[in-house]
Amino acid sequence: MSELGKKAIELVKKYKGKIQVIPKVPLTSYSDFAYIYTPGVAEVSRAIEADPSLSFELTSRWNMVAIITDGSRVLGLGDIGPEASYPVMEGKSLLFKYLGGVDAVPIPIMVKDENEFIKVVEALEPAFGGINLEDIESPKCFYILEELRNKLKIPIWHDDQLGTASAVLAALIASLDFVSKSPKESKIVIFGAGAANIATANLLAKYGFKYENMIIIDSKGVLHAKRQDIDSLFVKHKWKYELALKTNPWNIKTIEDAFSGADVLISASTPGPNVIKKEWIKRMNKDSIVFALANPVPEILPSEAKEAGAKIVATGRSDFPNQVNNSLIFPAVFRGALDARAMEINDEMVIEASLELYRHVKEKGIREDYIIPRMDEWEIYPRVASAVAYKAVNLGLARIRKEKEEFFNDAKEIIYKSREILIQLVRSGMIS
Amino acid sequence: MSELGKKAIELVKKYKGKIQVIPKVPLTSYSDFAYIYTPGVAEVSRAIEADPSLSFELTSRWNMVAIITDGSRVLGLGDIGPEASYPVMEGKSLLFKYLGGVDAVPIPIMVKDENEFIKVVEALEPAFGGINLEDIESPKCFYILEELRNKLKIPIWHDDQLGTASAVLAALIASLDFVSKSPKESKIVIFGAGAANIATANLLAKYGFKYENMIIIDSKGVLHAKRQDIDSLFVKHKWKYELALKTNPWNIKTIEDAFSGADVLISASTPGPNVIKKEWIKRMNKDSIVFALANPVPEILPSEAKEAGAKIVATGRSDFPNQVNNSLIFPAVFRGALDARAMEINDEMVIEASLELYRHVKEKGIREDYIIPRMDEWEIYPRVASAVAYKAVNLGLARIRKEKEEFFNDAKEIIYKSREILIQLVRSGMIS
Repeated sequence: MSELGKKAIELVKKYKGKIQVIPKVPLTSYSDFAYIYTPGVAEVSRAIEADPSLSFELTSRWNMVAIITDGSRVLGLGDIGPEASYPVMEGKSLLFKYLGGVDAVPIPIMVKDENEFIKVVEALEPAFGGINLEDIESPKCFYILEELRNKLKIPIWHDDQLGTASAVLAALIASLDFVSKSPKESKIVIFGAGAANIATANLLAKYGFKYENMIIIDSKGVLHAKRQDIDSLFVKHKWKYELALKTNPWNIKTIEDAFSGADVLISASTPGPNVIKKEWIKRMNKDSIVFALANPVPEILPSEAKEAGAKIVATGRSDFPNQVNNSLIFPAVFRGALDARAMEINDEMVIEASLELYRHVKEKGIREDYIIPRMDEWEIYPRVASAVAYKAVNLGLARIRKEKEEFFNDAKEIIYKSREILIQLVRSGMIS
Repeated sequence: MSELGKKAIELVKKYKGKIQVIPKVPLTSYSDFAYIYTPGVAEVSRAIEADPSLSFELTSRWNMVAIITDGSRVLGLGDIGPEASYPVMEGKSLLFKYLGGVDAVPIPIMVKDENEFIKVVEALEPAFGGINLEDIESPKCFYILEELRNKLKIPIWHDDQLGTASAVLAALIASLDFVSKSPKESKIVIFGAGAANIATANLLAKYGFKYENMIIIDSKGVLHAKRQDIDSLFVKHKWKYELALKTNPWNIKTIEDAFSGADVLISASTPGPNVIKKEWIKRMNKDSIVFALANPVPEILPSEAKEAGAKIVATGRSDFPNQVNNSLIFPAVFRGALDARAMEINDEMVIEASLELYRHVKEKGIREDYIIPRMDEWEIYPRVASAVAYKAVNLGLARIRKEKEEFFNDAKEIIYKSREILIQLVRSGMIS
């Protein structure tokens, strides 16, 4: 077992998990229960019964997010089931609070199929201000997200799709800026066709990249409209099928040809090294951009990619420069969506999150080793939150309308307080 | 609006709800995420995948309870729906933490019928160590509880049934001890046939009271085996039907006759005053015991009941003596069930909770105005918790086997810490 694995096990053994539910109101004597609970609480219920939208004003719901998974595709571990996925969900809950000030509840569920999954989430809507879907196998995850986005009146997010796509887009915009290439003309190889890369292809297209300039490669090779399995894709995986029609208009068939003349590689496939070959990178255009995002080991090591001519290399790892990390995205996007009481998180809002990360690195100065903020640049969280919230206002999706700066200050205060609570509890020996 | 109602609304407006989700592990730098979250967390998931029972050892699940309602019968408010029930559920969450050290999540759900309700709770099992059902209309609540008790491998509890029944039993054992009457021979009028009273009748019978000595009165009058609606009850409400067959063997038909010669009245019906008449109480035996539990106003005021001859009077109100209060029960019962990692909470464990409350007042000295502990006698919570946990061990229902004293010390520490956290956060200005 790795050292980090050992530390992870020791930590949860010692603390018996990572999160807890505590009051956020003072309680000075038992007589306070008369208005914290019965009989006083009945008035709060009556007020919400008269106007259900008040459930966001008068309860904790406005800041509560469910982290829901069926455990069918957890990290690199595959279909390990709901119980075994709990540690990941509660780790995420901790990040939600620490980085975004969001109260997030791990809810791994035991369901048989995608429609049951949808029914359970629909039933849970009154309990939460937002839903974060997590670690659901593809293509089930696409169907579930689409259906729930239509059915619910609160923000729905699938982090493996939207979070990763948004972080990739942010890093890509900055990288292209740095090498002075334009999104519209950049040719992109997308290596791997899982949830993240399919969502990335579509988000890139929404932003302004061209499907015609993309080539997708999956485990069976280069995707194109005439591939042998195209009919089976039509039946089993409409999202990949649609991309097969929209991308690769030249019907390129070999990986070598796909890389020839490409400006960008976005790889989210199987852990490396040597999954992406140096020879392939050599075929790319000058100033090529290589994102090798598999964990724990990138598909090609940054040093190798650089030797093969890549100008900018990004990975999913925190110990290399340029970590494409959805922890930069999801806590802040939810902070913004919740603060604006947005009815949904749509693609424009996701793109706005990417743009705000880009603006941040642009202001600081984009470098080969700085195309996306680091996780410890704390100001990016309220910044992205306020950008997303304000975008919701401009799109007419916000139930709370404020100026961007007000949203920024709100988010900053909430996030600051979330961290300060932890600091105080450690300081007072309550967590030790 | 009442003063308490106003304070309740002010409180939630100021704090935007009552509860939050926070870390219980220290976090000193961003590099800690490498074992709090990925990649280290994968080892924790792997361990649970290999042995799913470890989800209780290595995650927060062991102490997480879902408070689930469909909002179909909330307090005295009726079917107000899931959104409007949220304030009650989160008030309960606060009590769970403060009195029992339990992490409880409010989950009001939007479901159409009882079978959908059951399916949602089944799906949620991997996320929780226990389920607290709440404020579900009768008779649906009986079916849901029975089915879920059979289906799930974690403790299921319906507080309006079991919590109230357990508190009533505790108060009743002490009262009968005080007036030197025996449970087996006591004649009991049960006024109201909602969830609480039906569950109470059955729990009393499990404890040693006789169905033959009970008479149940509902909104249509005295229940008996030959009542006009008996066939309709057979179809629509089997729980009441069964009680119609088991109780009132004399086929008494009038309320007056029902009260004649009764030793005990347990009323949980509609708010008073004057729902229970003084004349009825006068018909009861010497040293009669009157529990008038409706809120906010008892069915008969204590002073009136006393004037009519009652020796002991209990109500549901905190401003009268003898508050029959399920807050004395549910936080401690769950504390005990969770600490023993019990597979269920069965009736023997519920009765043990009642007995422990009785033992406490017995040791302190039972008085006319002290038949059940007050909510601020903090030692009863770890006491009841350890009694329940140890009972689970003796019944072979515990996955963790300890001595009663060990359970007591564990519970005491957990509950103490839960309160201390709140005190520290108030002191440091984090909650103000």
